[in-house]
Amino acid sequence: MAEQYTELELAINTLVENFHSASPTKVGTLTAQEFQSMISKELPTMVKTAGDQEGLNKLLTDMNVEDGKGVTFKDFWLLIDSLATAHFGLLSKEKQVKCVKCSLM
Amino acid sequence: MAEQYTELELAINTLVENFHSASPTKVGTLTAQEFQSMISKELPTMVKTAGDQEGLNKLLTDMNVEDGKGVTFKDFWLLIDSLATAHFGLLSKEKQVKCVKCSLM
Repeated sequence: MAEQYTELELAINTLVENFHSASPTKVGTLTAQEFQSMISKELPTMVKTAGDQEGLNKLLTDMNVEDGKGVTFKDFWLLIDSLATAHFGLLSKEKQVKCVKCSLM
Repeated sequence: MAEQYTELELAINTLVENFHSASPTKVGTLTAQEFQSMISKELPTMVKTAGDQEGLNKLLTDMNVEDGKGVTFKDFWLLIDSLATAHFGLLSKEKQVKCVKCSLM
């Protein structure tokens, strides 16, 4: 395809395809094990707690996934949302600090 | 830094930094013009309608941004959410079609 995608468009694609390819059997839903495997492999820096069963259970509870239910794309997106919002908050904080410094100089 | 990020982690970073770097003056909020400029440059394939004023206004209305208000990261994230969900829906549909084909063969 001749079409050129931007970095931002490719990033959206990466997020969607990561979830999609982690679900070999079911359309649109991961089992807790498939989800844990994806998180451990793909989000090792951002989500450090999902490695053991206790951490995984806590994460699923935080994502409002009921016991025994699969993880939908919507659930996964809530996690991505919280990671992105936290990251944006950190960046904005750094910027604020810089701005204060600038106005003082 | 020695830390290695995965493709998924870099994708989250790209989404956040694109919005962040599009706001040179205000912390956390883009003007409609800054937003339009970012969308035209970074989402030309996924959002084709924001090029003129009418298209931009419609997009901002769809994102529930009030007239004259800036675009926050939360607003931007709603747009990314809808693009990702639509893209995921397309992928799942393709998969379903393939699955039906498989079971027929």
